[in-house]
Amino acid sequence: MPYTPLPRGSLQLAALQEAPLLPGSKGLPLHAPLLPSQVAAQQWNILRGDTPFPVAVLKSSVLHHNLRWMDAFCRHYGVQLAPHGKTTMSPQLFDAQLAQGAWGMTLATLPQVQTAHRFGVRRVLLANQLVAPAELQLAAHLLQADPDFELLLLVDSVAGVERLQHAAQSTGLQRGFSVLIELGFSGGRTGCRSAADALALAHSVAAAPGVHLAGVEGYEGLLVSANREQDLAAVQHFLSELASVLQQIDQGPGFAGEQVIISAGGSAYFDRVAEGFASLPALSRPLLPILRSGCYLTHDHGFYHGLIREMQQRLGASDTGLQPALEVWSMVQSRPEADLAILTMGKRDASYDIELPLPQQWHRPGSSDPVQALPAGCKVEKMNDQHAYLRLPEGAIRQDLHVGDLVMCGISHPCTTFDKWPHLLLVDDGYQVQDIIHTCF
Amino acid sequence: MPYTPLPRGSLQLAALQEAPLLPGSKGLPLHAPLLPSQVAAQQWNILRGDTPFPVAVLKSSVLHHNLRWMDAFCRHYGVQLAPHGKTTMSPQLFDAQLAQGAWGMTLATLPQVQTAHRFGVRRVLLANQLVAPAELQLAAHLLQADPDFELLLLVDSVAGVERLQHAAQSTGLQRGFSVLIELGFSGGRTGCRSAADALALAHSVAAAPGVHLAGVEGYEGLLVSANREQDLAAVQHFLSELASVLQQIDQGPGFAGEQVIISAGGSAYFDRVAEGFASLPALSRPLLPILRSGCYLTHDHGFYHGLIREMQQRLGASDTGLQPALEVWSMVQSRPEADLAILTMGKRDASYDIELPLPQQWHRPGSSDPVQALPAGCKVEKMNDQHAYLRLPEGAIRQDLHVGDLVMCGISHPCTTFDKWPHLLLVDDGYQVQDIIHTCF
Repeated sequence: MPYTPLPRGSLQLAALQEAPLLPGSKGLPLHAPLLPSQVAAQQWNILRGDTPFPVAVLKSSVLHHNLRWMDAFCRHYGVQLAPHGKTTMSPQLFDAQLAQGAWGMTLATLPQVQTAHRFGVRRVLLANQLVAPAELQLAAHLLQADPDFELLLLVDSVAGVERLQHAAQSTGLQRGFSVLIELGFSGGRTGCRSAADALALAHSVAAAPGVHLAGVEGYEGLLVSANREQDLAAVQHFLSELASVLQQIDQGPGFAGEQVIISAGGSAYFDRVAEGFASLPALSRPLLPILRSGCYLTHDHGFYHGLIREMQQRLGASDTGLQPALEVWSMVQSRPEADLAILTMGKRDASYDIELPLPQQWHRPGSSDPVQALPAGCKVEKMNDQHAYLRLPEGAIRQDLHVGDLVMCGISHPCTTFDKWPHLLLVDDGYQVQDIIHTCF
Repeated sequence: MPYTPLPRGSLQLAALQEAPLLPGSKGLPLHAPLLPSQVAAQQWNILRGDTPFPVAVLKSSVLHHNLRWMDAFCRHYGVQLAPHGKTTMSPQLFDAQLAQGAWGMTLATLPQVQTAHRFGVRRVLLANQLVAPAELQLAAHLLQADPDFELLLLVDSVAGVERLQHAAQSTGLQRGFSVLIELGFSGGRTGCRSAADALALAHSVAAAPGVHLAGVEGYEGLLVSANREQDLAAVQHFLSELASVLQQIDQGPGFAGEQVIISAGGSAYFDRVAEGFASLPALSRPLLPILRSGCYLTHDHGFYHGLIREMQQRLGASDTGLQPALEVWSMVQSRPEADLAILTMGKRDASYDIELPLPQQWHRPGSSDPVQALPAGCKVEKMNDQHAYLRLPEGAIRQDLHVGDLVMCGISHPCTTFDKWPHLLLVDDGYQVQDIIHTCF
């Protein structure tokens, strides 16, 4: 597939484009500063071994595929998407997501919101309760300085509501803060532990000057165990609770905005969430259902790959669904034992929180052979800060894999790979580097 | 102890000092850009809750203590120190280490070397075999463009030596590359698996134009198991092997420089390494013994804390040795269940590779009470990307700890906390922020 630039929206990316890339940037073969706009002209190719290794690459055609797939999914169910931007923290990828129809961005912390706002994001769902006085003041400052900037916050406690009320008053924030009540579940993370608690909290919000109730929120994505049937039942139960809270608040203390927001949906079960949202009863005002998946954009070769395959089966879908766009390429640095290759990739370079990197392919730079699949049994069995231990099964690979050969690993959980790379390389299907993707962690 | 700036050497830090800090930087309460030189005047205080949370802090007085402690240690044993800079990747901390007498810096990758060189580091031990053609070219470029820059590389294979030879020839590098032969051990990481292999490799180096043998190197720091007695015996055996390789090369193919380098010493057993280096027999030319510990500077509350306590016992030392300088402060965001506090700190903020963060203290911002120790049994039992689950034991803490309270966690393994923070806050003993410490990952 020929290279096509990512969809371009209205974010202001000049600050990224105008700052020269410096020698010492991971994955970039620079001996002098270089502008990002000059990268494509360098004609670096990963398979030719033109870069330092490790390098994190994003496959452009796969990003296009995933963007379109998710857009079609949301249109099908009539839900909006506020992708969780904490996954990539990349203004360029935010821009592509917004250009592809996303309603806004979800973010996890106030500094992340400030960064997104700095690049021109206009609508943010901050999927956390803000409690630090400094962060409340910074949020109030954003809202005062930019009257059209939309920000939704979560609350799960009276203490949280009181902090918002106090911050609105002490900063003279006329607009007040818009909040969603977070419903959680027993044994979970944040969020009210029952519909009754959530309803009581809605009354507290209604009585709190400077705090406006815009809807309800939950996060079912933590319900991942070894027993998927149980997980799905728990998700279903949680979604009905969320719907019930929505109705009870609508009929009780009520919501403040012109629309009522309901939001859930991580990257594991967003089919169930979208189906649930599509079957909600009518409320006293129009409903705005928002999914928040963050990992759909790059997907992965492990954790989410398995979950989305299951989803496609649930949906009876004929297509393959989301595809992995993120790969980490490293080089064989040493072959000290017959069944061991040491790779130039470590805990600083690839996710290891859910599982270790997943070796997929290898290639000898300069060879005209195509990229070859690694045989089953090749396994990264350990990582240090800057090294991976690739164990080789019996067979030809023990003779074939030499010092200087390239190994491609997929990862499990994109969030914990993105935050290890200030820059990723955007490549076409021939692994020619077409652009630099910046992250802002 | 009154605040004293860190020791200042000759590195060129202007690029860090002149770039404004931007809103959205983790841990910094900024609503407009701010120069690092203006930070102290803001009078931010961690305990007063003046910053966003989480925030990573470095205790200035402890850094001073650790710098002096390690300098005294090295002087006592007559060894040089090339601290592993990959731990912090902070030019300001490199500068303090060099000002305190470090011989040079150790680094792990070629991009790290480029970064250190960009800030003025003049002597680097790159503790890896460089095999990527792009990296070899960048290394040759550095050596050609800056004739006084000293760079040592490792080799552990003929393939590696051939790549160096080829790169020296193809780039016309008159100076050639200076290398140390890496000795490893069976079941370990990189490095020759036997003294015989190392000796054979020394002959290959002697026969390779453009590659000069400067010494031998090993890394005993991986020999950490549940059985310390066995570990120490293995360390001892490894060090004798290394000494034997050194002597055999000296009497055989020989070394190329005016001095012969021997280097080992992670952050776990550097006492044994220093003792071993002190008892080496004389060679045909003067010996330059180099330790490479990276974690001594900030130390930690977990993994290295235990190892250094053991070392102090081995040495019969009366002082407490290294102290932890690195702390991550987060805020209680939610108290959803009686024994659960959710903290604003996750996998993006604190190490979790050896063990989860270690909760130590808590404080209510604005309270005049001193910081209080958390009771035994408080435990971070899980982290998501941006949250930690702090489990509270039975007792008063379940009533005492509120939404908005601060919790200080120590960490295990500084390397994997530093790489999560573009900026850390340097504080005095009253947690007043005195300066910003930049990292360059």
